[in-house]
Amino acid sequence: MTAVIDLNADLGEGAGHDDEILDLVSSANISCGFHAGNPASVLASIRAAKEKKVAVGAHPSFDDRVNFGRTEMHLPAGDVFALVAYQLGGFQAMCTAAGVEMNHVKPHGALYNMAAADPALAEAIAHALLAVDKRLLLFVPPQSCLEKTALELEIDSITEFFADRNYMPDGSLVPRSRPDALIDDPLEAADRVLRVLNERMVEAIDGTAVPMLPNTICVHGDTPDAVSFIRELRRRLELEDVMIAAPGKRV
Amino acid sequence: MTAVIDLNADLGEGAGHDDEILDLVSSANISCGFHAGNPASVLASIRAAKEKKVAVGAHPSFDDRVNFGRTEMHLPAGDVFALVAYQLGGFQAMCTAAGVEMNHVKPHGALYNMAAADPALAEAIAHALLAVDKRLLLFVPPQSCLEKTALELEIDSITEFFADRNYMPDGSLVPRSRPDALIDDPLEAADRVLRVLNERMVEAIDGTAVPMLPNTICVHGDTPDAVSFIRELRRRLELEDVMIAAPGKRV
Amino acid sequence: MTAVIDLNADLGEGAGHDDEILDLVSSANISCGFHAGNPASVLASIRAAKEKKVAVGAHPSFDDRVNFGRTEMHLPAGDVFALVAYQLGGFQAMCTAAGVEMNHVKPHGALYNMAAADPALAEAIAHALLAVDKRLLLFVPPQSCLEKTALELEIDSITEFFADRNYMPDGSLVPRSRPDALIDDPLEAADRVLRVLNERMVEAIDGTAVPMLPNTICVHGDTPDAVSFIRELRRRLELEDVMIAAPGKRV
Amino acid sequence: MTAVIDLNADLGEGAGHDDEILDLVSSANISCGFHAGNPASVLASIRAAKEKKVAVGAHPSFDDRVNFGRTEMHLPAGDVFALVAYQLGGFQAMCTAAGVEMNHVKPHGALYNMAAADPALAEAIAHALLAVDKRLLLFVPPQSCLEKTALELEIDSITEFFADRNYMPDGSLVPRSRPDALIDDPLEAADRVLRVLNERMVEAIDGTAVPMLPNTICVHGDTPDAVSFIRELRRRLELEDVMIAAPGKRV
Repeated sequence: MTAVIDLNADLGEGAGHDDEILDLVSSANISCGFHAGNPASVLASIRAAKEKKVAVGAHPSFDDRVNFGRTEMHLPAGDVFALVAYQLGGFQAMCTAAGVEMNHVKPHGALYNMAAADPALAEAIAHALLAVDKRLLLFVPPQSCLEKTALELEIDSITEFFADRNYMPDGSLVPRSRPDALIDDPLEAADRVLRVLNERMVEAIDGTAVPMLPNTICVHGDTPDAVSFIRELRRRLELEDVMIAAPGKRV
Repeated sequence: MTAVIDLNADLGEGAGHDDEILDLVSSANISCGFHAGNPASVLASIRAAKEKKVAVGAHPSFDDRVNFGRTEMHLPAGDVFALVAYQLGGFQAMCTAAGVEMNHVKPHGALYNMAAADPALAEAIAHALLAVDKRLLLFVPPQSCLEKTALELEIDSITEFFADRNYMPDGSLVPRSRPDALIDDPLEAADRVLRVLNERMVEAIDGTAVPMLPNTICVHGDTPDAVSFIRELRRRLELEDVMIAAPGKRV
Repeated sequence: MTAVIDLNADLGEGAGHDDEILDLVSSANISCGFHAGNPASVLASIRAAKEKKVAVGAHPSFDDRVNFGRTEMHLPAGDVFALVAYQLGGFQAMCTAAGVEMNHVKPHGALYNMAAADPALAEAIAHALLAVDKRLLLFVPPQSCLEKTALELEIDSITEFFADRNYMPDGSLVPRSRPDALIDDPLEAADRVLRVLNERMVEAIDGTAVPMLPNTICVHGDTPDAVSFIRELRRRLELEDVMIAAPGKRV
Repeated sequence: MTAVIDLNADLGEGAGHDDEILDLVSSANISCGFHAGNPASVLASIRAAKEKKVAVGAHPSFDDRVNFGRTEMHLPAGDVFALVAYQLGGFQAMCTAAGVEMNHVKPHGALYNMAAADPALAEAIAHALLAVDKRLLLFVPPQSCLEKTALELEIDSITEFFADRNYMPDGSLVPRSRPDALIDDPLEAADRVLRVLNERMVEAIDGTAVPMLPNTICVHGDTPDAVSFIRELRRRLELEDVMIAAPGKRV
């Protein structure tokens, strides 16, 4: 088997391992400063990603530094459109200053989760992307409202698979509140990724085979063992001739 | 005498008279959401200005909603560059969404006052403007670091005269802490504006004639009598055949 | 008829009429700095209320300066407890500094509306009050979860009637999105207040008589005509021998 | 030699090692939510410290989540008084909720550094402490304005020594911008602490002996090797019969 897959992680959120993670991933979702960081740290993260030849994406969120963008907020769709378009515009100015092209958009936290299930939110985000640069890729959960909206509005979408999370039979993630939400062993995570790449399905928590055809694998950088987890996962994928590369032609 | 002058006021800061003020001014400095408002209100203000054919400018500030952008903050110049470029990029996205071109940039509050006297801050702001759109006009206090920097970096600058403020002999404003800082009478303010337009100088608090060749007159919208003050001022200027119009070719 | 009723208004939210309003009301709900203002402005508002002998209450909210506390936020009850207790503790320190006793608590905006219908939120707020000072009065909407919770936890509650809002047959407010939400005429508002005081009921939008036995009348200070509305309302109430006074023994 | 010394570290700032650090220190300076965290995380940190029998202190700061309380802000002394008193009041409410007594106050970041050299700021902080609870201990840098102000206002002060920082001949810290600012080796840090305890002086960067009589040793939790550094330092101090304990009678 020879496959190509993107490995993406969040960056610029103060987790403290950004340098090591940039050596291991192909795409970085960089906080736009509304849930973590500020314009100066956004610019520094973009420059660091450029230095390591990692594709740069915007990671817009609710305006919620107080709770790291995790608070579910109920806002009119027009407000969410403005919220996201503003962050993409600000982020784009940072990319211009760094001399790098923005490659993708991945909403953060509660905004991402809510938009996965809410068509009005999904459309607000999609239209914000179109208002700023219609060539941007949109990272989406499989079978989500975001994926459907991207298709309808002719936005190139990139489907995510979570290497370190278990799945429900309907293709959604096992909630973090459950003890079986997370996969701690990087080798087990790698095996799951390989199976997804080979067999185009993932085994849900109850044994059901859930169809899954991802373009990017999401890894997390905010746990103490994050770096060694990603390193092991990447090593194992490369041993199986899986190539790690960012999606899109602009990188 | 037939003269043309711009009349500018701050907008989108929650002062409550925005609609009336848009009927009276030719340029609006719209909060970028860092000292007041949020992306949705920024977009609404831009749309309102477009509706009234008022030229749209960005009004970037320190990140200080807590104190309305009035806190003097000491940040590295690189951080201020990122702070301003981010706001201009976000603001530009709102302008694109509203189908209007951004015409100018006027820094707000403590950022404006500090940059008037600090070359490093002035340069940070100027380079932020250049990174986003080098055709943007920069509003500047007369004889300030901002004016000098604009000249050096070939940015078109627009010099401001404050209709409702008294001046010191060195051309700076009488500090608000002094009882003689403000001019409350709109007719007196209009007379001062007319003299500035005719004689190219303003009489300072001690009688000194201070050279003054402004392209825009700043009026304030955040006092209870703001609207009637501006209305009187405008009426008197028009009686004297002064035409009120925004600077620049893009409006 | 001789009746006594409290007149309450929000304060310290930047509406610009605080001084005039303090001359007209008996209780002030002062922003705790989480949706408007900051500790210095909170302290200034408390001192202004003390000067005018107006009873001082805390007006805690979601942490949402960006949207003036109007965003519905979904937080765990434990987080809301901490959020409110923190604001009450901070507010109490400001009261101590001003040499005044805090008299009541009235939640703000989305927090108030959500707690009116959500028992877990109502309990979180009530326990926050108890943690800080169990003698504090809690302002509540009639027949709300907040009122029930106060009763269960033996907190003295003060039921609010909105002078300038129409009511639904179930006793809830006509939503602001409807054209008949507001009562603009102060004399009509006064008549409604008098009828409520005399007959212990209010006529809903469809003519239904809704039982209503309020201890305080809420008036709004954030409209252009707010001051004259409250002045007219108060004048009319006093003409009918209604006495305006704050509830509680500690004022 | 038998000596007793306090070991203090910052907590609740999102650094990710809070649990391990609570096993090693005797006092925790917990963020009040103005530079990091929020009321819910403040309460959780206080509870965690109580569980580990670590003395609880408030760590108030400028309102600056955007830059982690590191921005130098110029505010009137009255505003700083309100800012700090508000945070102490909010923090006290969290302590009440957790059933623990607040033991000390240590200002954070730019606020601490500025107050060390500015008598008006030092007094604003001291008066805020007095307004909330005059029995609170105030952590101070040696020979600072904060120390002098505490003495004048009869506040019990606790002088800090930084185990991992080099000192200038005048007793101030070597600025972080210099390559010789930090001491990376825990054994060298322990030796310095032991010498300070024995000889009541520290050797400055140029060899000068600077008098130093500290009551608490500050350690940092925000570096990757923080936990092992503190563990080594503590082990070495205990080998030399130095007892680690919080100051004050209320713990």
